[in-house]
Amino acid sequence: MPASPSQPMFDHIAILGFGLIGSSLARAIKSRGLAARITGSTLDAEDAREIEALDLADRCVTDPAQAVIDAELVIIATPVGSFAQIAKQIAPNLRPDCIVTDVGSVKEPVETDIAPNLPDHARLVPGHPIAGTENSGHKAGFAELFDGRWCILTPMDDTDPDALARVTSLWEAVGSDVATMSIRHHDRVLAITSHLPHLIAYTIVATATDLEQTEQAEVIKYSAGGFRDFTRIAASDPVMWRDVFLTNKEAVLEILQRFSEDLTALQRAIRWEDGDQLEQVFTRTRKIRREVIDAKQAE
Amino acid sequence: MPASPSQPMFDHIAILGFGLIGSSLARAIKSRGLAARITGSTLDAEDAREIEALDLADRCVTDPAQAVIDAELVIIATPVGSFAQIAKQIAPNLRPDCIVTDVGSVKEPVETDIAPNLPDHARLVPGHPIAGTENSGHKAGFAELFDGRWCILTPMDDTDPDALARVTSLWEAVGSDVATMSIRHHDRVLAITSHLPHLIAYTIVATATDLEQTEQAEVIKYSAGGFRDFTRIAASDPVMWRDVFLTNKEAVLEILQRFSEDLTALQRAIRWEDGDQLEQVFTRTRKIRREVIDAKQAE
Repeated sequence: MPASPSQPMFDHIAILGFGLIGSSLARAIKSRGLAARITGSTLDAEDAREIEALDLADRCVTDPAQAVIDAELVIIATPVGSFAQIAKQIAPNLRPDCIVTDVGSVKEPVETDIAPNLPDHARLVPGHPIAGTENSGHKAGFAELFDGRWCILTPMDDTDPDALARVTSLWEAVGSDVATMSIRHHDRVLAITSHLPHLIAYTIVATATDLEQTEQAEVIKYSAGGFRDFTRIAASDPVMWRDVFLTNKEAVLEILQRFSEDLTALQRAIRWEDGDQLEQVFTRTRKIRREVIDAKQAE
Repeated sequence: MPASPSQPMFDHIAILGFGLIGSSLARAIKSRGLAARITGSTLDAEDAREIEALDLADRCVTDPAQAVIDAELVIIATPVGSFAQIAKQIAPNLRPDCIVTDVGSVKEPVETDIAPNLPDHARLVPGHPIAGTENSGHKAGFAELFDGRWCILTPMDDTDPDALARVTSLWEAVGSDVATMSIRHHDRVLAITSHLPHLIAYTIVATATDLEQTEQAEVIKYSAGGFRDFTRIAASDPVMWRDVFLTNKEAVLEILQRFSEDLTALQRAIRWEDGDQLEQVFTRTRKIRREVIDAKQAE
């Protein structure tokens, strides 16, 4: 149900962290009139001034504790590694019954780093929009980023149903489909769909950067053969991804082990020139693309 | 220098194999009037009829030996694994001074499988357009595929300079930039820019197909987190890629070894929670994307 401009969904939303996701969310909320007021926070004072000048937030400060004062909804959009500190900073200033949500790529840290640091009256709803680009920073954001994308919410045992419903409404209002699942399940599924692909892309591009200078220039020149697509993924925010791998360590290492076994099997098939095995695997993987397209996750 | 319609660049071009590359080249040649006549060959009789009906070739047959009769230029656009057989089939029917070229992703097989099987009068110019999509078959082709892309020619010691110049002109006329290098160097550079990325993409998608059914459905549903991009590459033609790995075995195994070492180092950094090392690698890879964009190989 889209909110009418005369009756915004929230009276005051605080967005902590104005990177790609935070600033896109601010733009989407602004453009659809979902909040009477947005306060932002970002580490850099110059960024804060620019965010205000661009009207991405009505006010933007450098101290998250200041930003959350009187907010009905607080959205934590900083790297997962900062969660404990941010939660401690904002805890004393949260308004009664304040809803706190996040957009982190790993959900366990919400349980371990945010939840224990919040006051009892705060209503916590962990969330993760499956959307993004390889660009970062507030200038990279755009209001349509969440259109037709999934947002996964991972309510905990004590998550307030009303708070869950209101966060769901917000994501639906910015164009997303909302799914819910457990924190544990989320972190396992994302290890496969997102964390492993990023690790692999970072690795293959790193391998290329170790080549001697002239070879490296050629790799860039002829990157349209496949390498190019990996460079896009490997251009994602380094700090955000460092935190993802540190916080979803077990699930990532487990799926990486499977991947390494499968890669070794293909390596062996190449060494022993087992063309049938190669063709069989390559035929099997082709079907998955069709399913991804059928699920409207690609064209 | 674009050819005028009244004076086509070639009087008769034979294109053997009407997959993505062969059919795109036929469309590009037709649309720019670069040949007075195109004869095609493809394995399937029904495809041959359709190719004629769509006017992708003036005539399309199922026997490559028939297709090359009286051709000034023969373009071999079949999988690399078929090169020896195709060369043997067409050899007796090649017109004097016929230029023979190919579009294979690995260039050594041109030297080992095509060259020894051609008559002395044939003028062989190995080539490889760095262009493609994940789709295959003649319906997937389009005339603009080579626009602004590189085409690498790998002349051999005895390659005729006039033949090289004429093949160069053809690729330039369909919109490509032409580079030349040795066969050995080509196969090594492409192992990094194209063959390894494809192998990795095939592997990660294969790893996902081994998950149990419900998990697999979720991987597809939430594929926008990174996995999606790999499914596109892993949807590439299975037979073509089987042949690539079988024929460029040494270079692929060598770069795969480097990749595996780098992956193991990152795996270890995750296990021991070495955030500094992760961030440092992820920062280094980010620069490469900028260079790819600067080289106009991505936007």
